[in-house]
Amino acid sequence: MDELKWDHQGLIPAVVQDAETGKVLMVAWMNRDALEQTLQTGQTHFWSRSRGELWHKGATSGNYQEVAAIHVDCDGDTLLVEVRAAGPACHTGATTCFYRTWEEFNV
Amino acid sequence: MDELKWDHQGLIPAVVQDAETGKVLMVAWMNRDALEQTLQTGQTHFWSRSRGELWHKGATSGNYQEVAAIHVDCDGDTLLVEVRAAGPACHTGATTCFYRTWEEFNV
Repeated sequence: MDELKWDHQGLIPAVVQDAETGKVLMVAWMNRDALEQTLQTGQTHFWSRSRGELWHKGATSGNYQEVAAIHVDCDGDTLLVEVRAAGPACHTGATTCFYRTWEEFNV
Repeated sequence: MDELKWDHQGLIPAVVQDAETGKVLMVAWMNRDALEQTLQTGQTHFWSRSRGELWHKGATSGNYQEVAAIHVDCDGDTLLVEVRAAGPACHTGATTCFYRTWEEFNV
């Protein structure tokens, strides 16, 4: 875990991808604690930068993400987490947080 | 473009996904200039944090990435760029920068 390149805030971005559909669901941030909890429980945990607290994905919505695999990129500063999701990733109810194209966003 | 949530360094993370295979290829950072160049040319451009310069992906390797679609996440702080890649995304020659599992990385 020491070999990961944590940023100056002790965080690393994690891309969450649906292991079955290949859809990119969300990007969130992990600190060491979040990664440890993710490894120990097999469910995704993140560091919520807005709330300043550990965030067990699904704890309030029930939409837990079971970890199928974790990959590390070439320079060790980003994680890719493949998951089996119990429900939508997005708080809007959309399957993925990336539900808008640039054209839809930029109107 | 003003509605995107650029970080305090004026950057936004961009997840690059192969439009055909669904593989997540890499994560890199864009500033406004990189996003504008990407939109104008239809090829990915990033801001290289290590070199401190605009980076036209493929300019040295020939492995350009043609943009198929750009998506914005729910809170406007991350981009997902679907591409058709002319070759490997990774400087190691691997198709994707995420070629190692956590277990392979963490030995």
